[in-house]
Amino acid sequence: MTPIHFECDKLIRFHHCDPAGIVFYPQYFVLFNELVEDWFNQGLGIDFARFHVEQGMGVPMGSIVCRFLSPSKVGEMLHLSLSINRIGKSSLELNVSGKAGGETRVQATLTLVLASLETRRSLPFPSELRNKLEGYLLPASG
Amino acid sequence: MTPIHFECDKLIRFHHCDPAGIVFYPQYFVLFNELVEDWFNQGLGIDFARFHVEQGMGVPMGSIVCRFLSPSKVGEMLHLSLSINRIGKSSLELNVSGKAGGETRVQATLTLVLASLETRRSLPFPSELRNKLEGYLLPASG
Amino acid sequence: MTPIHFECDKLIRFHHCDPAGIVFYPQYFVLFNELVEDWFNQGLGIDFARFHVEQGMGVPMGSIVCRFLSPSKVGEMLHLSLSINRIGKSSLELNVSGKAGGETRVQATLTLVLASLETRRSLPFPSELRNKLEGYLLPASG
Amino acid sequence: MTPIHFECDKLIRFHHCDPAGIVFYPQYFVLFNELVEDWFNQGLGIDFARFHVEQGMGVPMGSIVCRFLSPSKVGEMLHLSLSINRIGKSSLELNVSGKAGGETRVQATLTLVLASLETRRSLPFPSELRNKLEGYLLPASG
Repeated sequence: MTPIHFECDKLIRFHHCDPAGIVFYPQYFVLFNELVEDWFNQGLGIDFARFHVEQGMGVPMGSIVCRFLSPSKVGEMLHLSLSINRIGKSSLELNVSGKAGGETRVQATLTLVLASLETRRSLPFPSELRNKLEGYLLPASG
Repeated sequence: MTPIHFECDKLIRFHHCDPAGIVFYPQYFVLFNELVEDWFNQGLGIDFARFHVEQGMGVPMGSIVCRFLSPSKVGEMLHLSLSINRIGKSSLELNVSGKAGGETRVQATLTLVLASLETRRSLPFPSELRNKLEGYLLPASG
Repeated sequence: MTPIHFECDKLIRFHHCDPAGIVFYPQYFVLFNELVEDWFNQGLGIDFARFHVEQGMGVPMGSIVCRFLSPSKVGEMLHLSLSINRIGKSSLELNVSGKAGGETRVQATLTLVLASLETRRSLPFPSELRNKLEGYLLPASG
Repeated sequence: MTPIHFECDKLIRFHHCDPAGIVFYPQYFVLFNELVEDWFNQGLGIDFARFHVEQGMGVPMGSIVCRFLSPSKVGEMLHLSLSINRIGKSSLELNVSGKAGGETRVQATLTLVLASLETRRSLPFPSELRNKLEGYLLPASG
C-alpha cells in the first residue's frame, strides 16, 4: 500500500501578504493550521472543532523546522501536502510542503503533541486515532 | 567585550491567544517580527520602515528552527532576547528566546536574508550594516 | 431581473477564535475581505490580484457600520452574502451579512472606494466595471 | 471636572500593513482591542487577563461605526484616544480615534457589552466598575 498524502489548495489572499507583496511568513503557519484542520475533518474523519470542544483535546505545536525557499505572491494557488514521518507515543512528526508555479515555496517538519486542554499535559494517542494516523505514515527509508 | 543581547518585553494580549487560552503559535512569529523591528529601530539604529520604503531592502525569513517548550497565557509578560549566532555574506542566523514566569517558553533559530525588495534577490551586507550587526554576535564556542 | 447576491461559505477556523472560544471580531473583517476577493474573482470575473498588481488599483475601506448579533464558534459554517446598496462615482456601498445556525451573526454596511495604489487617490469607476457592479445592485426601496 | 481621555501610542508595524504598504483595516480593530486592554490595565486599574480568566467576564463587541479617513503607513506612530459617549445598563459606547502626522486617520464608535463568558449573556455593570467607567464619560452635549 502506498502512503497517503493529504493535500489541499489554498489561495494566497491579500491578507496573507506584507508590504513587499509576498506572503508574510507567519501566515504560512496559519495556513498549515488550516491544513491540519482540513486533514482532521476530511482526511482523518475527525471533527476538529468537536475534538477540541467536546473531547477536550488539542494538538499544540511542539517544534518546527521550516525552510522558506521562494516567495509566494497574492493570487497564487498554494498546493499544500501533508504526510507523517514518525508517530510517537503522544507526538506526531508531520512533513508539510507548499508548492506553486512548479516549485516548492515552503517545506516544514512540524511536531504536534496530543494534549489535554484542561491539564495541558500530553496524552498517549488512543488506538483508534493511532490507526487513522498510520494511514498517512511514510515508509521508513533505508 | 561581552556580546550584546537585544531584549524587549511583550505583553501577551487577548488577540495572541487561541480558544485553548494560550498563545496561538504563529503569533510568536509575529512577536519575533516585532522584536526584529525593535532591534533595527532601537538596537542597530536603523529605521526599519525607511530601510524598506526608502532603501528598498528587506530581511525575509530563510529558515526557522523553533521549539515551543511551555504555553504562554494572556496577561503574561514575555521577555524576548535576541543575539547573533553567525553572520554570513548575505544571511544572518539569530538566536531568539522568549521567557516568562522563570521558564523558557519558546526558543528559536531564525535565518534572515538581506534582500532587495525590487529584484527579490539576496544582497551582501553593506560594511556599515555588518559592523553594527557584529555588536550582537555571540563568541564562537570552541 | 432580480438582483444578484454573491454568496460563499467560510468555515470558522480555530485561528479565527479567541480565548472565549468565539470569533475574534476583527477576523470577521478578514473574512469580509476574503468575500470581496471571491466576489471579484468569481462574481465579477475580475482577477483581484491582477487588479492590484497589474492595474494598480485597490478598493480600500472608507467606512464600516457593523453589528455583531450573535457569536460564531469554531467549526461552524458561516454563510456570507453580499449585495450593493449604492454605487457612487468612485465609491460603493456593500450590504454584507453572515449567517449560521439559522440566525444572522453579523450584519455590515461597507463603503469601498476605488483608488489608485500609486497616488492613493480615488478614481471614478471605469464604465466596464460599473456595468459589472450594477448586476449586484439592490433595487431602490420606496 | 474635565472628562478624561485614555491615550496611548502604537507603532504601525510591518505586520499591520498590506501589499499596498498601508494598514490593512482589520488591523485597526486589533489595535483598538489593544487600546481597550491597555485602558483596563492602566486606566481603569482592572487586570484585563484576570477579568477574563478569573472573573469570567468579557467585553465582546456589539456594534461598530468606523470611518477610515486617511491611510497609515509602516513606521508611523498612531496616537490612539478613547473616551465614553454613553454608559448603558450593560453596554458602553466608546469614542475612539487614531491620529498621526497631524491628521485623524481613523474615527470609530464602538459599543462594548459586558458579558459572562460562561453563559454568553449580557451582565449589568457592577457599581464599582460603573464608577470607574464614569471617569471617562464625556459630558452630554447640549
